[in-house]
Amino acid sequence: MFVYKHKVQFYETDMMKIVHHANYLRFCEEARVAWALHKGLIDYQKPDSAAHFAVVETQVRHLKPLAFGDNIEIEIQGRLQGVRVVFEYKLFERTRYGQDPACVARTVHVALGADLKLQRPSMEMKKVLEKEQWIETWLLNL
Amino acid sequence: MFVYKHKVQFYETDMMKIVHHANYLRFCEEARVAWALHKGLIDYQKPDSAAHFAVVETQVRHLKPLAFGDNIEIEIQGRLQGVRVVFEYKLFERTRYGQDPACVARTVHVALGADLKLQRPSMEMKKVLEKEQWIETWLLNL
Amino acid sequence: MFVYKHKVQFYETDMMKIVHHANYLRFCEEARVAWALHKGLIDYQKPDSAAHFAVVETQVRHLKPLAFGDNIEIEIQGRLQGVRVVFEYKLFERTRYGQDPACVARTVHVALGADLKLQRPSMEMKKVLEKEQWIETWLLNL
Amino acid sequence: MFVYKHKVQFYETDMMKIVHHANYLRFCEEARVAWALHKGLIDYQKPDSAAHFAVVETQVRHLKPLAFGDNIEIEIQGRLQGVRVVFEYKLFERTRYGQDPACVARTVHVALGADLKLQRPSMEMKKVLEKEQWIETWLLNL
Repeated sequence: MFVYKHKVQFYETDMMKIVHHANYLRFCEEARVAWALHKGLIDYQKPDSAAHFAVVETQVRHLKPLAFGDNIEIEIQGRLQGVRVVFEYKLFERTRYGQDPACVARTVHVALGADLKLQRPSMEMKKVLEKEQWIETWLLNL
Repeated sequence: MFVYKHKVQFYETDMMKIVHHANYLRFCEEARVAWALHKGLIDYQKPDSAAHFAVVETQVRHLKPLAFGDNIEIEIQGRLQGVRVVFEYKLFERTRYGQDPACVARTVHVALGADLKLQRPSMEMKKVLEKEQWIETWLLNL
Repeated sequence: MFVYKHKVQFYETDMMKIVHHANYLRFCEEARVAWALHKGLIDYQKPDSAAHFAVVETQVRHLKPLAFGDNIEIEIQGRLQGVRVVFEYKLFERTRYGQDPACVARTVHVALGADLKLQRPSMEMKKVLEKEQWIETWLLNL
Repeated sequence: MFVYKHKVQFYETDMMKIVHHANYLRFCEEARVAWALHKGLIDYQKPDSAAHFAVVETQVRHLKPLAFGDNIEIEIQGRLQGVRVVFEYKLFERTRYGQDPACVARTVHVALGADLKLQRPSMEMKKVLEKEQWIETWLLNL
């Protein structure tokens, strides 16, 4: 399973002294982009390719707070669902919480053309996603 | 119904030339805080009171894109659910989309003590929420 | 003098329980865009016009901290300097600090064509800026 | 010289399709925190220690634009100046710009006590900074 690492920055905290909840969607995006890069799905020479993959739905469940300096590990799985691409995420902070995720999330995406109209996911993405393992029960707590 | 207004800033866009999806959780927070202020539930002299109201779950569905300069109107409803407080949101951009929401969202919260331990919502919040109208079917598209 | 108002949001704070310093550049941008809109220099039907006005330099001096819920007033002045446009800002929080600015700032900009190459500022902008009052000694403390 | 690396994220871009200027102060903060951690000056068990180091001034000059996916390298130097600590930064994107920095910056800081009153920098920080090399002419273009 693909794992992405992120160290919590000072500017990601709020006056509760924990990570502000909106930043978790940014962490998921970082993991998703790194996953796509790892799979050969992002071409930085054509940055607009990444721009044409839109977010249509997000869902986040916060189980434990995260703090400045925390070393987060994000596990991610993805699959096709018709014209949609679904990603699921588990965020861990191993030092304090061990095997318990601090956060679980799901995001749903569609491909758009240059005209911002709905398209089918590219053949490359289809091929990659069909080879991915998907565990239906992976996010029991979302 | 309480309505909050937000004008989309340049820094809230991304290279897709639309509002980055993580910012919608910030718009919901703005609306929620303005609602709580309007209801007399925030005391800026004791800023920690606001800090002790944690986000445990968020869900956002994006129906239409938002762009730089858009004048957003956010409608919000809230209710108690055991120790939890649930808010629902509709974001409108009337000029382009009329009565169709551009986005709908739900956030779930709990009160925490100074020790970050779970508490019951305050009596003031209970009283305010019990008087609020809650329409069960308000967010059919979430 | 043009004055822009901004209420400090929860998500703009950090674990010091004050506004994170990077957000001041966002407040300046909000004030600058509102000023340009007020002067008829932004056409939201052609959003790319705003996109072709690049930031080349920023300078911020923090004099007093700002906190959640603060009502900021931002005064702004602008002028041409060759191909550059310079803006200066004073941020006030009247309740606690009275006439003393909480922050002063300066930003420098250039116009870019669709090809991202340097251009002269538009005739409209020149006309507006030549009519503006500019007080050389306005930011003695920057 | 200490070098910090940051990969530009999608959410750090704006509708100009380049990194939004306010994010450069976040990159500088990341580099500064990583430097302080490397020098043994941050104790994540006492997160408030980092919180008591305030930003009083920032200055940024943008020389070249940065884009989604860029691999930034940030060089940093720091020194004491009375009760102040000054850091200077060069941001490089080697692939496109080679030895030319894309951005140079300077930030000035003071130590604060738990009461937010001005303090002298800690003995540990003094010791570290006195051993650092400082090149006066390092940022000729700021």
